[in-house]
Amino acid sequence: MADMGRRDPVAILAAGGRMPRLVADAISATGRPVVLAALSGFFDGEAGPHDMFVLSPGQFSLLFSRLRQRGCRDIVMVGEMKRPRLRDLRIDWGGVKRLPLLFKVRGRGDDSAMRLLTETFEREGFNVVSLSDVAPGLAAPIGPVGRLLPNVKQTDSIAFGFELLGALSPFDVGQAAILHGRRVLAVEGAEGTAAMIERIAALRRSGRFSQTPPSGILVKSPKASQELRNDMPVVGAATLQAASEAGLAGIAVAAGGVALAESAEMARLADQYGLFVVGCDREGRWTNG
Amino acid sequence: MADMGRRDPVAILAAGGRMPRLVADAISATGRPVVLAALSGFFDGEAGPHDMFVLSPGQFSLLFSRLRQRGCRDIVMVGEMKRPRLRDLRIDWGGVKRLPLLFKVRGRGDDSAMRLLTETFEREGFNVVSLSDVAPGLAAPIGPVGRLLPNVKQTDSIAFGFELLGALSPFDVGQAAILHGRRVLAVEGAEGTAAMIERIAALRRSGRFSQTPPSGILVKSPKASQELRNDMPVVGAATLQAASEAGLAGIAVAAGGVALAESAEMARLADQYGLFVVGCDREGRWTNG
Repeated sequence: MADMGRRDPVAILAAGGRMPRLVADAISATGRPVVLAALSGFFDGEAGPHDMFVLSPGQFSLLFSRLRQRGCRDIVMVGEMKRPRLRDLRIDWGGVKRLPLLFKVRGRGDDSAMRLLTETFEREGFNVVSLSDVAPGLAAPIGPVGRLLPNVKQTDSIAFGFELLGALSPFDVGQAAILHGRRVLAVEGAEGTAAMIERIAALRRSGRFSQTPPSGILVKSPKASQELRNDMPVVGAATLQAASEAGLAGIAVAAGGVALAESAEMARLADQYGLFVVGCDREGRWTNG
Repeated sequence: MADMGRRDPVAILAAGGRMPRLVADAISATGRPVVLAALSGFFDGEAGPHDMFVLSPGQFSLLFSRLRQRGCRDIVMVGEMKRPRLRDLRIDWGGVKRLPLLFKVRGRGDDSAMRLLTETFEREGFNVVSLSDVAPGLAAPIGPVGRLLPNVKQTDSIAFGFELLGALSPFDVGQAAILHGRRVLAVEGAEGTAAMIERIAALRRSGRFSQTPPSGILVKSPKASQELRNDMPVVGAATLQAASEAGLAGIAVAAGGVALAESAEMARLADQYGLFVVGCDREGRWTNG
């Protein structure tokens, strides 16, 4: 749980994608200030109202001194971070001392790399916290967002969709798919969710998907590899608008594994577009019990 | 094996897609004439040089009398055939006598429906033959077509791709995918192979796939449900051209499960486009032993 009493800033080691800024906003909303330590070559967002400094991978001394200056003890690593390329590294004295660590991190899987970094931060007296500690409520909960609910047939379709995403997960692909009943209309590859949703309109035009809108359900879950980091796919206002434009009936996301951006807006937008939006467990169930 | 000595015509009960005409051409090339019994509402090809008559699902008397007139004994059912809709049925006297059969066929899975139809034809003295009996060489064999071969890394990528297609097969989707190494770039949904291949060019433009062409491998296999009928996905000149335009390195198809159209042309085109084209077993191996 977020400790609502604390006022010392939380450091966010901010990598790529939308998550770091969303996390910053969510922490900020709990009353704690935030310091964005933006990893150059990875973080590509805006600081907004938050305190931010930029560092390169390898600048450990810089990181530790800036965080101590600001009185940070808690640190959370957030966002998409492929292994840094050698040419992106800027090794300061703290980095030189940790060259063996850097090479280990580059050579290992994500899980192992995260553990090594966590140990390094903790040896310096920092406390590596998890997303759910500092930003509870960012990940979708189980159950509906907004007023509309999936019917029995749609609930079956969602379960089938999550089964599909589960089968794809060893292949590090298929973070999302679109189904109608048990027919799989689209599977997300490297094109991203937005481009996949756009295909539904084309399928309708060509007659390959001839069901009257609203029809078709977007299911979305994190990649297996994504679960290892503090990174989540994000469903936000743009996703709802795209789903509505494609004539979809609703969206089902993995509870705890997909972030709802602008969550206060989501229920209102879901109702406005006439979409259901539900958080589900990994079997696609969206009701507790 | 095809009996090269026989000259009695082979009847093709022709449903949808490209396969019926390809099979007709392939049988014709072995020296036996062909009669296309074109199922209205399903067959949408051209008769070309072949004898053809049109019938509706349910017109059993018409089918049997026309085939006997032409001296057909062998019959092969080819092509894509969803269960006929009631409004497409035209029930003649032979159909009336078989109404229970028609309702059974509509209500059952493909496998069971095919068995019932086979029994019906055989009770009338026809001999239901398989594709490999009358048109050997239509399905891709194991091994390379053309001069180029996948290298070791590409062979690993192909095996990974076939593993992916296998995982998708219970979901009746993902007849094809495009990979680079072990990265899955695209998975085919309802859009079809051609539209999926076109996405690679878009991925290159947007920088989501930044490998220099030729790169990326198309893997293609039949759907699980497709294997139950005499229907196969087809790879032809258009597929090779699309693959070449998308800058792919090659194509790997399930041997015995994917038809190579204009097969004499394929090797020449593969070499001209600088693509490898290989038939693989279900583990993605393309060499015998």
